[in-house]
Amino acid sequence: MPACGLMVADIGFAGLVDVLHIKALQRWLRGFKMQAEMPLRGFTTSEFQIRISRAQELMVPNGFDALLFTTPHNIRWATGFDTQFWESPTRPWFLVIPAKGAPIAVIPEIAGSRMAETWIDDVRTWPSPRPDDDGTSLLASVLDTLPRRYGRIGMELGREHALRMPVAQFQALQESLPGIELANGTPCIWQIRMVKTKAEIYHIRYICQLACDGYDRVPELVSIGDSEREAARSLRIEFARLGADSTPFLPAISGPGGVPQIVCGPSDRIIANGDVLFFDTGCTFDGYWCDFDRNYAVGNISDDAKRAHRAMWQATEAGIAAARPGARTDDLYNAMAKIIDEAGSLGNNVGRLGHGLGMQLTEPPSHMPGDGTVIETGMVLTIEPGIEYAPGKMIVHEENIVIRDDGAELLTRRAPDEMLEIR
Amino acid sequence: MPACGLMVADIGFAGLVDVLHIKALQRWLRGFKMQAEMPLRGFTTSEFQIRISRAQELMVPNGFDALLFTTPHNIRWATGFDTQFWESPTRPWFLVIPAKGAPIAVIPEIAGSRMAETWIDDVRTWPSPRPDDDGTSLLASVLDTLPRRYGRIGMELGREHALRMPVAQFQALQESLPGIELANGTPCIWQIRMVKTKAEIYHIRYICQLACDGYDRVPELVSIGDSEREAARSLRIEFARLGADSTPFLPAISGPGGVPQIVCGPSDRIIANGDVLFFDTGCTFDGYWCDFDRNYAVGNISDDAKRAHRAMWQATEAGIAAARPGARTDDLYNAMAKIIDEAGSLGNNVGRLGHGLGMQLTEPPSHMPGDGTVIETGMVLTIEPGIEYAPGKMIVHEENIVIRDDGAELLTRRAPDEMLEIR
Repeated sequence: MPACGLMVADIGFAGLVDVLHIKALQRWLRGFKMQAEMPLRGFTTSEFQIRISRAQELMVPNGFDALLFTTPHNIRWATGFDTQFWESPTRPWFLVIPAKGAPIAVIPEIAGSRMAETWIDDVRTWPSPRPDDDGTSLLASVLDTLPRRYGRIGMELGREHALRMPVAQFQALQESLPGIELANGTPCIWQIRMVKTKAEIYHIRYICQLACDGYDRVPELVSIGDSEREAARSLRIEFARLGADSTPFLPAISGPGGVPQIVCGPSDRIIANGDVLFFDTGCTFDGYWCDFDRNYAVGNISDDAKRAHRAMWQATEAGIAAARPGARTDDLYNAMAKIIDEAGSLGNNVGRLGHGLGMQLTEPPSHMPGDGTVIETGMVLTIEPGIEYAPGKMIVHEENIVIRDDGAELLTRRAPDEMLEIR
Repeated sequence: MPACGLMVADIGFAGLVDVLHIKALQRWLRGFKMQAEMPLRGFTTSEFQIRISRAQELMVPNGFDALLFTTPHNIRWATGFDTQFWESPTRPWFLVIPAKGAPIAVIPEIAGSRMAETWIDDVRTWPSPRPDDDGTSLLASVLDTLPRRYGRIGMELGREHALRMPVAQFQALQESLPGIELANGTPCIWQIRMVKTKAEIYHIRYICQLACDGYDRVPELVSIGDSEREAARSLRIEFARLGADSTPFLPAISGPGGVPQIVCGPSDRIIANGDVLFFDTGCTFDGYWCDFDRNYAVGNISDDAKRAHRAMWQATEAGIAAARPGARTDDLYNAMAKIIDEAGSLGNNVGRLGHGLGMQLTEPPSHMPGDGTVIETGMVLTIEPGIEYAPGKMIVHEENIVIRDDGAELLTRRAPDEMLEIR
């Protein structure tokens, strides 16, 4: 379980009189009170029934007779079924959610007995791999017998979805179903998943807190002279020790006074005095992710780096304050961009200043101009402002929040406005 | 670096006079002599040029003017570029390999500077995410100017491929390219990747040996009374400590005298006297995977379980012996299936007895009736016989091999024919 290890000092005594800091303290204390024990793994049948009801409600305005899932995250969201075996691309998996009634799993025989142990009663299997018909005819027979109101089935065909079945098989499935359109269900599916249930939020908070515990230990785990790769390995082991199920995302990137980019790493670069060491982390617990970063000052860093860090801390505050029900993602972007621009940003190749979070490292929406998503209670979001304050020197902050009726609540423990130090 | 920790005793003194055991000893000694230091990370430009030449040679008989990759494994295979950022489904990535000339990367701006540091000279970027045109027009403009001989571009549309871009975007791309067919390039792509280079084999051997070192330590790491989840966590940490980059696949499954299935787990089940504890492992090093399992006897297990284990050890021997250039995957299946049947198998829901291995946990081919793939020198394969010797009691073995001109060479250190014990 995560320790409640953040000291008030971490918020910065020097600035406690500052309004921003008082708000941060209030927010942190609220997070502290809410801090959870390790959630029970899995979810109740009534939780899944609530999820399916929400999906079925949203199918009507979208004109779908059913949704058809092929991806691990959507299948797990609806069934609770998980397997690391999804790492193997050999066999496709399917879940049909009709507009009325219970979901139907159409899956390879190898996992039939386990799917039958979930709340899903209707499990149909075929002996896979079967190259000439790897579930296509079985799936088509299921879809063909569904009640037809619209003649359309929503699939994962749009943005931020990659269908987990061969496109050639998708095309064959479509051809075998005259009179049914396999349509783009992506906007509907993301609309369903974007608002999290209480139990989902409880899971995400837990992994966020666990990752905070790991980050707190970085100054003990990492020293000047370590390579980025060694630093990442130490933190990876710490996350596992603390109870993370997996850590699929853990870039460790360093550079003098800032980092040149935030997506590739770790490398064998040796961490040296004057560097900023940047960690970003996507850990999982029971299928739910955190996604937030931390910056560490290695030895003595420049005043410019400190200023940029403080500006991004304030941009994060502004993003959190703007994240209220009824606001748009564009508003969050604008609130952060104003501070980033004032701090003298040279630009930003990330393209957005935060996004949704849940069963994947990133989910819709995106905080960017034109996204236009209206923020709702129950959404879980990242707040992720970044700056390139000098050529090749980026500093990026990130926190995870959940939207409540009265505004944002932190799921992470707020980063201090002065970087923690590595010696 | 992996220690050479396997003792001759592990092969089973009792059976050393047996021909099978002598063969196993010879094979193990050969593996020992070949055991590698940690490979340098990354590959030389000439290595990538060899890979691209092979791809370009095979494009001709397949009638492709280019191959278009969207998936992490294929892009990394051709460029050496890696990022954990592929965990985010938001932005699509593209690599174009023309039938003649150098590859062209068409990727989001966020990673342009890093792709430019690989051997790829031609890197084109767009500011992503850009929902209304997330690279489509830029990519179409590249494809449209390629020399046209066949009017066909091979894409990842077939079996064991899931396109990593939205299907709707794929359809829009096709519509924007009249006169060019975006065709199923999957058979061609797998043909290219199925035979590994010397440097790739060196990488795979290294991660196999590292995982062997981890497996050797299981009796020290796991005790009766631990949960499966605790056992998996201990081994996950051990793999990281030994130097694995990641361990995306690590089921830990236990059951009295055998396991009910091999793909879902770990659970919170407590490991008890009489159990078989089954681990399967997909660890990675520099983008290359191992995939092999081990079975441990917890306390005192039944004679039936021991017999089934020994039979699968012998089936593995038969599979390894059958894996020679010119044989077919069907032959490997038949060689193993004969011993499995004779041992009294009730059936098998896995559907095949091994597969290809390299940059993914599983790759083509499949050792199964009708697969028909001719084994070639340089292929890396798993040999994976399994038996359900009593209802709900499965025992599955697995080793990783590379095909040489004169037959199979082990990349793993051969499992002992008697299970290692956990007390």
